[in-house]
Amino acid sequence: MNGSDAPSYDSMRNLRWSPAEKAIARKAFDLVLQREFSAVIDEARKMMANVKQVSALWELEQYLTERRKDIDRRYDYRYSVLPVVFGNLISEGRLSERELHGLGEDKLQCIRKYAKT
Amino acid sequence: MNGSDAPSYDSMRNLRWSPAEKAIARKAFDLVLQREFSAVIDEARKMMANVKQVSALWELEQYLTERRKDIDRRYDYRYSVLPVVFGNLISEGRLSERELHGLGEDKLQCIRKYAKT
Repeated sequence: MNGSDAPSYDSMRNLRWSPAEKAIARKAFDLVLQREFSAVIDEARKMMANVKQVSALWELEQYLTERRKDIDRRYDYRYSVLPVVFGNLISEGRLSERELHGLGEDKLQCIRKYAKT
Repeated sequence: MNGSDAPSYDSMRNLRWSPAEKAIARKAFDLVLQREFSAVIDEARKMMANVKQVSALWELEQYLTERRKDIDRRYDYRYSVLPVVFGNLISEGRLSERELHGLGEDKLQCIRKYAKT
């Protein structure tokens, strides 16, 4: 930690993830991603059920394109950026800290700081 | 007509469409376009009904993008190119000549030539 509100990228990159921590991180990451996917599928089904004209179908297409790009951008499973990803997901209410139970305090502190910024 | 298999673009551009012919052309054009839209909506509904995983949803997105671009490209309602559009639609089996009943023989000859090329 460098004392500022957000940890430096260097300190984040230098975190060492144990195999057990990697397993916890992967599980949490996949869990939230699956929740996103389920929400998109549910919303797409609702939109399709209301399609009467083709214009509504192109709206569905646009919705899917935007959601796919947004999800691709936000879900980046590299350990060098994972604390930012988890921090953002917590601040968006998509992930709770208890779903990261088992991560070392160094990672959790880093994630908490990103959750606040 | 210039005697070759396909009429020249000049002869096509120089065709004069009467108000009655324009009404017939518009009606035929809209009819085929609506058929295309209905087919895309039906296929999209089937694809959505089979979505279990998000990968199938992104396949639906790709299908919609391709269909939208393809339809945009093929349906060009400018009188200067309409005989080509109608000719192509006839050769694809999407339009029958009887749906163009009432167009002058000059337009029909031009359309028939494009339907054959």
